[in-house]
Amino acid sequence: MNTSHFPRLDLNADVVTLTAALVDIPSESKDEGQIADAVEDALESVGHLSVDRENNTVVARTHLDRTERVLIGGHLDTVPSAGNLPHRLADGYLHGLGSCDMKGGVAVSLRLAQRLANPKRDVTYVYYECEEIESKFNGLKMLADRRPELLLADFAILMEPSNAGVEAGCQGTLRAKVHTVGTRAHSARAWLGENAVHQAAEILTRLGAYEPARVTIDGLEYREGLNAVGIAGGVAGNVIPDECVVTVNYRFAPNMSTTAAEDHVRQVFDGYRVEVVDLAPGALPGMALPAAQAFIAAVGGEPQPKFGWTDVARFAELGIPAVNYGPGDPSLAHAADERVPIAELVACEDRMVHWLTRDR
Amino acid sequence: MNTSHFPRLDLNADVVTLTAALVDIPSESKDEGQIADAVEDALESVGHLSVDRENNTVVARTHLDRTERVLIGGHLDTVPSAGNLPHRLADGYLHGLGSCDMKGGVAVSLRLAQRLANPKRDVTYVYYECEEIESKFNGLKMLADRRPELLLADFAILMEPSNAGVEAGCQGTLRAKVHTVGTRAHSARAWLGENAVHQAAEILTRLGAYEPARVTIDGLEYREGLNAVGIAGGVAGNVIPDECVVTVNYRFAPNMSTTAAEDHVRQVFDGYRVEVVDLAPGALPGMALPAAQAFIAAVGGEPQPKFGWTDVARFAELGIPAVNYGPGDPSLAHAADERVPIAELVACEDRMVHWLTRDR
Repeated sequence: MNTSHFPRLDLNADVVTLTAALVDIPSESKDEGQIADAVEDALESVGHLSVDRENNTVVARTHLDRTERVLIGGHLDTVPSAGNLPHRLADGYLHGLGSCDMKGGVAVSLRLAQRLANPKRDVTYVYYECEEIESKFNGLKMLADRRPELLLADFAILMEPSNAGVEAGCQGTLRAKVHTVGTRAHSARAWLGENAVHQAAEILTRLGAYEPARVTIDGLEYREGLNAVGIAGGVAGNVIPDECVVTVNYRFAPNMSTTAAEDHVRQVFDGYRVEVVDLAPGALPGMALPAAQAFIAAVGGEPQPKFGWTDVARFAELGIPAVNYGPGDPSLAHAADERVPIAELVACEDRMVHWLTRDR
Repeated sequence: MNTSHFPRLDLNADVVTLTAALVDIPSESKDEGQIADAVEDALESVGHLSVDRENNTVVARTHLDRTERVLIGGHLDTVPSAGNLPHRLADGYLHGLGSCDMKGGVAVSLRLAQRLANPKRDVTYVYYECEEIESKFNGLKMLADRRPELLLADFAILMEPSNAGVEAGCQGTLRAKVHTVGTRAHSARAWLGENAVHQAAEILTRLGAYEPARVTIDGLEYREGLNAVGIAGGVAGNVIPDECVVTVNYRFAPNMSTTAAEDHVRQVFDGYRVEVVDLAPGALPGMALPAAQAFIAAVGGEPQPKFGWTDVARFAELGIPAVNYGPGDPSLAHAADERVPIAELVACEDRMVHWLTRDR
């Protein structure tokens, strides 16, 4: 008798069907309980894997005593819905929230976990929570803090969308709140107060005029960005607001330190109170590392720069070489028309199987 | 046995003590249940009054068959707290949320209701909810719709703060949402999206540059105003926002129609989608009306213009002449340092008793 309340995943289904099933389980950050239950349940039925779980993060491992262990990672969470659920198939794409970022990559990883009872390398499959929000909630960070033994590996592949090509390194990310302060008054006597929302005009004007840098490293061009990702102010419909907060996100090239990034943002918003709320370093592309070169040789193609922050940076901090490799166009991540090409889902699965099963 | 859970009000206490007790019952708009219970309970123990209640609005009336009936009104709700609770007494003032707008006036009215068993005019005391938010929730509007017989009167006095002098007419108020629309994208690839929050810079710049009109009517100068009272935008910390909403409040002189007010706001924000969410006409000062002149003669002083919107406009629509008269400086309404002069509480009570008990 099946009494559980989460959807079942069939790991024997093809990668497209599996991606669709994952998309149709809503999993906005901090609400990954149901999808983690489904993933854990499906993996526990795979005989050649041991399964561990911490909160809503699931780890499955082979134990074949191979000389090399690779980690294949993907996050289970998505940004909030933009009215793009459930999934639909059209024009060679699977459409829907998270299809690209990154349930397609998770589906490939789950297919590998199910299919490969005897890979040439030991594999650690990691399915984790809270990648899309402040890094303090990140499931991979939680594992590094609480269960570091589960992350031991010689090389890591993050299956974030990369157009089924290798994307190297990643940019750093900083989030800050920029504050204006005014004086409350009744809005029928506005001249007695000072409007903090009106003051935010200057902050938004600076953002609109900002010219982001382009930085070339190892032949790869990284594009920076500084943007408002939120704004909030207001007390009541008849009160001159005494506070307004603009939340900004700075994406900086991997050769910039977190200290330099913070200094830069404080300089841009000189004259305002700047409160840094989230800060994660980038990762240099590391194209010269042997493990990276071997992987690139196996899957083919020209490496590209990674613009978005990914947990590649976290592996860099742990001393594990890592690259991004997964299905989907990262430009469509978080877009309302998010989608993943069916051909890339299939190609990624094939190439990863090839890499993990061929002789060295 | 007292089994009820609301605070008790002692209407025999002096007006300062009574104001303090009212301030210490939190009553933000839509949360007036406790204060309405307390007011209803206190009035029911006054033998010479009949008491009615609709939702959180309480009406108490004398029935002396006088030739004239006057209505004395005050709202029970406040704007949200600015950390200014509970009340405190200092320097001749009673400080605290709602002390000025308008629990001081409510306390004066409750004292009159308790003291005057035999006034020269029949009196209808109204204590109502939801004055500080959109007019559709307004308790006086609700009475006009559901129980209009309770509002029958020859003249009305709203005890809104007016420095214990008569303030005439009131300005109209319009609230609108001004929208910007962009395109979502991952904030690491901002160039693929269009930032709706950045676009709001122009709206805020127009607001900052706006020059409000001054309009003289019956010798009284009204000062208009157009201000942001709120702003909101943002999807997630790593998404370029596709929408931003600036809520603006336009206060317009009493000789401007609601249609003209709406046209004006649409013109100021030309190029943006403008959604009017709240619109209430002003009231002309009506200084020539005999009832107004008689009241002014009784309480003394020079009438002043009322800048804020008050329910005087609602009485104007019902055909009942009305003025504002109450303790407290309206400039301090909704301010964090809101307070009411103790001397004005006492003076208002004295003058109203005088007016209601003297021979004509």
